[in-house]
Amino acid sequence: MDCKDLAVLDAVLSSQAFIFGSEATFADSLVYSALTDKLPNTPANVVRWAQHMAALSPQQRQALPQNTNLACGQTQIDGKLSLLLQKTSIDGHSISENSRNASSIPPTLSLSPKKCASPARPGQKSIGSNCKGTKLILKTPKGTRDYHPPEMTVRRKVFDKILDVFHMHGAVEIETPVFELKEVLTGKYGEDSKLIYDLEDQGGEILSLRYDLTVPFARYVAQNRIGNISRYHIARVYRRDNPAMTKGRYREFYQCDFDIAGSYDQMLPDAECVQVIHQVLSSLDLGDFVIKVNHRKLLDGVFGACGVPSDKFRPICSAVDKLDKSPWSEVRREMVDEKGLEADVADRIGEYVKLNGKQDMLDALKSDERLKNNEDAQAAIKELELLLHYTSLLECDASLLLDMSLARGLDYYTGVIYEAILKENQNGEDADSGPTSKKIKKKQEGEEEDEEGGAVGSVAGGGRYDNLVGMFDAKKRTVPCVGVSFGIERLFTIQERKIRQQGIKIRSSCTSVLVVGAGKGMLEPRLALCALLHKSGIRAETSRKMNPKFLGQLQHAEEHGIPVVVGVGESEVQEGVVNVRCTATRQETQVPRVQLVAHLQQLLPTLEKL
Amino acid sequence: MDCKDLAVLDAVLSSQAFIFGSEATFADSLVYSALTDKLPNTPANVVRWAQHMAALSPQQRQALPQNTNLACGQTQIDGKLSLLLQKTSIDGHSISENSRNASSIPPTLSLSPKKCASPARPGQKSIGSNCKGTKLILKTPKGTRDYHPPEMTVRRKVFDKILDVFHMHGAVEIETPVFELKEVLTGKYGEDSKLIYDLEDQGGEILSLRYDLTVPFARYVAQNRIGNISRYHIARVYRRDNPAMTKGRYREFYQCDFDIAGSYDQMLPDAECVQVIHQVLSSLDLGDFVIKVNHRKLLDGVFGACGVPSDKFRPICSAVDKLDKSPWSEVRREMVDEKGLEADVADRIGEYVKLNGKQDMLDALKSDERLKNNEDAQAAIKELELLLHYTSLLECDASLLLDMSLARGLDYYTGVIYEAILKENQNGEDADSGPTSKKIKKKQEGEEEDEEGGAVGSVAGGGRYDNLVGMFDAKKRTVPCVGVSFGIERLFTIQERKIRQQGIKIRSSCTSVLVVGAGKGMLEPRLALCALLHKSGIRAETSRKMNPKFLGQLQHAEEHGIPVVVGVGESEVQEGVVNVRCTATRQETQVPRVQLVAHLQQLLPTLEKL
Repeated sequence: MDCKDLAVLDAVLSSQAFIFGSEATFADSLVYSALTDKLPNTPANVVRWAQHMAALSPQQRQALPQNTNLACGQTQIDGKLSLLLQKTSIDGHSISENSRNASSIPPTLSLSPKKCASPARPGQKSIGSNCKGTKLILKTPKGTRDYHPPEMTVRRKVFDKILDVFHMHGAVEIETPVFELKEVLTGKYGEDSKLIYDLEDQGGEILSLRYDLTVPFARYVAQNRIGNISRYHIARVYRRDNPAMTKGRYREFYQCDFDIAGSYDQMLPDAECVQVIHQVLSSLDLGDFVIKVNHRKLLDGVFGACGVPSDKFRPICSAVDKLDKSPWSEVRREMVDEKGLEADVADRIGEYVKLNGKQDMLDALKSDERLKNNEDAQAAIKELELLLHYTSLLECDASLLLDMSLARGLDYYTGVIYEAILKENQNGEDADSGPTSKKIKKKQEGEEEDEEGGAVGSVAGGGRYDNLVGMFDAKKRTVPCVGVSFGIERLFTIQERKIRQQGIKIRSSCTSVLVVGAGKGMLEPRLALCALLHKSGIRAETSRKMNPKFLGQLQHAEEHGIPVVVGVGESEVQEGVVNVRCTATRQETQVPRVQLVAHLQQLLPTLEKL
Repeated sequence: MDCKDLAVLDAVLSSQAFIFGSEATFADSLVYSALTDKLPNTPANVVRWAQHMAALSPQQRQALPQNTNLACGQTQIDGKLSLLLQKTSIDGHSISENSRNASSIPPTLSLSPKKCASPARPGQKSIGSNCKGTKLILKTPKGTRDYHPPEMTVRRKVFDKILDVFHMHGAVEIETPVFELKEVLTGKYGEDSKLIYDLEDQGGEILSLRYDLTVPFARYVAQNRIGNISRYHIARVYRRDNPAMTKGRYREFYQCDFDIAGSYDQMLPDAECVQVIHQVLSSLDLGDFVIKVNHRKLLDGVFGACGVPSDKFRPICSAVDKLDKSPWSEVRREMVDEKGLEADVADRIGEYVKLNGKQDMLDALKSDERLKNNEDAQAAIKELELLLHYTSLLECDASLLLDMSLARGLDYYTGVIYEAILKENQNGEDADSGPTSKKIKKKQEGEEEDEEGGAVGSVAGGGRYDNLVGMFDAKKRTVPCVGVSFGIERLFTIQERKIRQQGIKIRSSCTSVLVVGAGKGMLEPRLALCALLHKSGIRAETSRKMNPKFLGQLQHAEEHGIPVVVGVGESEVQEGVVNVRCTATRQETQVPRVQLVAHLQQLLPTLEKL
């Protein structure tokens, strides 16, 4: 393969990931084999592609599917590519090296266009009416999806209910760009940073898609020198993770955050966040839930009192975080074998992390011999007592449970932490997999992690993070923050299932009136009626056909749940009347045209409540 | 500069665009000068950076600002970078080559930390309390902005009004991912493709941020084999353009699209789109506007009849498109000199493109000698007559004007095209620049182009595009489409200005009731009152301080326009009453606590209407 070949390859790869498009095929293996000894003096796109190919094992490369379609859409390049592929498969010397691992895949690439099989997977659509055309697979990017009208309708309803709660708390809305300077995100997510989507550097700034809404919020507060704000932000975030879309885990997904920034009196904002969780989950009517609460300083106090050296607080905290998916014995083993904790220290911790309760638990901890003189623990216990008191006054403590095994993932929490969990096997949720399998997948699939809660059935999570804004401030001015993030995609999925189970048909449009014509020549009266109704703010539509069939129009109203049909025929036009038909009851009333608006304004509110 | 130096540079540039962060400085010039002879065998990040530097002229490189702060946040790399820079400025041999062009900027880089001046521009904040810390400039990426609460409030209101109109037309909502496979966008935007944001290739798929909502919609229709749909989509799109943010032009901006896909009877969906424009602009109450309408086939017919060869239809159409910013003489010159049209052919076109009107214009064209036998023109005239008729029935023809000079940018239009223009110098809009300067900037600044209309004061635009879905379909199955896109950012800017001019204070939160305490120890009754009110869906908040000052609380209510204050003091608690104060009138009533909810439910609707 010479420089010219490399240039051809570079041109092809400049607009697509692999030789035949967005999926690797056996052709990539062949060309890659012919190429390896030329690296690294290759053009940029070839280097990038070669890195992908190098990431595959020889076996994987051998097993790539055939693709017999020559394709990049530009005739000139197609011709050159064709020559390149022919050459590669003829002198494809490295094929033989690996062919001992090869399965039944033919070692040479067929260039004959006789087999023009679609490479599309089920559910995808491929384009290209002939073998020379671009073989574009019609799909959304990996880990993303389109939202269809019924889904959008459910979404809007869920959002509206959540917004109602946020508005109860005087929250205001902000919006930040979908991407940030990469530097803003750097150093905030630990090893999850590898999941950040970067933009191609096209001049001047290095940008990344936002990974969550919390770091952009902290940047916003610091940049605008905001002293206090209660804000909400509903937007999509991006994580280049292995998606598990059937379980509602995506690379592009909504987060719905409520945060209180500012210096207030102890535990008042924290209690309000717990109240927000309680109100949102109650309002969405998802069945029983529990809001687990813990305190980072209480954990640290316990660690200290049990004899954990202070430099091991965070690693031991990470181990505790695994208690919702692993038994104590395994977590203990990690503490002792991996993290070098003395066995008796681990055993002491084990006594504490199994504790849960409310005031009873705090009372036990207050009189605990080891914690008596531990400042961190005593301060945290006082804060949690206050939280219990306030949440009781706010009538949102029924589902609250202090739980010493809750640790949460992110390092930036500095105080109270919480996580809301839907009780299992409600609405058929979680029936497909036990808690263990679900939790084990968590770390690869990311979506439920951290701000969205990390446990089985977790739908919300958050806590106090008093130092994040300071990371953005020149004078390290801190603005204490506490917040909660709802795992919206999960809530959508549950809502959708609930609606399906209840057999409710979701209306995607919200048309109130369908204007129909009986007999031919009714287009003009229909359009005029629509204009009349629109002027009064009544949502009326009519067929976009000149002479639609009468029954077809009625059927449209029934299928789309349009509550009222207003009908005109020749005689009605002459008499200046219209027929108003209620779709549900099929009752018809004749109404003078001049009274139609008033009639509907009275009728519709009663029908649309149903 | 040796391999080790390159490695240091690569490490620094792996997380930032330039040596000192996201802006080039003179240090980049120095290092670049020392480096050029080593290229191209350099690490990837250095190559990318060097390409940026190469794009600058020697003069520009010389004129880059000084930055005396050593910074990339990692001590080890900082030390090595410091050595590299010292070395570069000592043996900076290429400096002298270019120094004949240098201005007063010192040729060597000061490394002394005594001057720790902030490199931030006004309105930006830089971080780093000492000269060794990360010099992160706190800003949003170029061409983007944060939206603050009052802006979000205006936004929501504008959206709600637009949605009300879309819902009148039975439209349903869809959502597509923010990025698409690059191949989906390829070949749809002509030379504007260079403005597409690409994602860094991080494995497998090459992705780009969406450039508009129309192409993703066509992909959606084709992929899901949809026969007909009326959908709306409100979302941000991305164009890597030179932003002019003071004029409301951004790299990230909202589009608000309504489209009708499906086979319907002639001109009915098209008239509905014109109606949607009319209804939206009327509802937003932006003053006088005109909806210019033309037809691609009429333009083609005129070109044919005037003697334009058919292969020059599109280039000549592009020339006509410039008539809203250039005088005819200039457009004629382009046609004749640049596009090789015969002078008399151009003159003939000149007679047509100055025509505008309604039925009178169509009557003139119908009897026009040249167009009499032109099928395209006659078909288009019939369609436009139908459009006039339907828009008249729909009562949305008052602002409609057929205008033969309207051509619109995108190639994909196949029938009726339209553009809505706000009349100038209303609400102070357009006072800052004349129509010419505004239009001339259009092509560089992109935001107003195409779907959002391309002319002075243009706030909406669209047309019929019958072939776009077919481009995605394997069997070239076409789904005829017609749609309109609103230039939302522009509408926001105008609305915000209007609100400012009217002196209306925008409320960002929608709290109905502030619960206040008189005297100390009122926290508990306040929290309990909030819980009580929240249960009835009343938006009530209270201070997050234990003992806030009474007057401060009242002031908070007045400043934030909270209509009602509910107050408790010790005696009220004892007597089981509360004081209900109307913020606007300062009238106070004492109400038994048990009647509070009922009282507020009656009072609030009257107050919140104001």
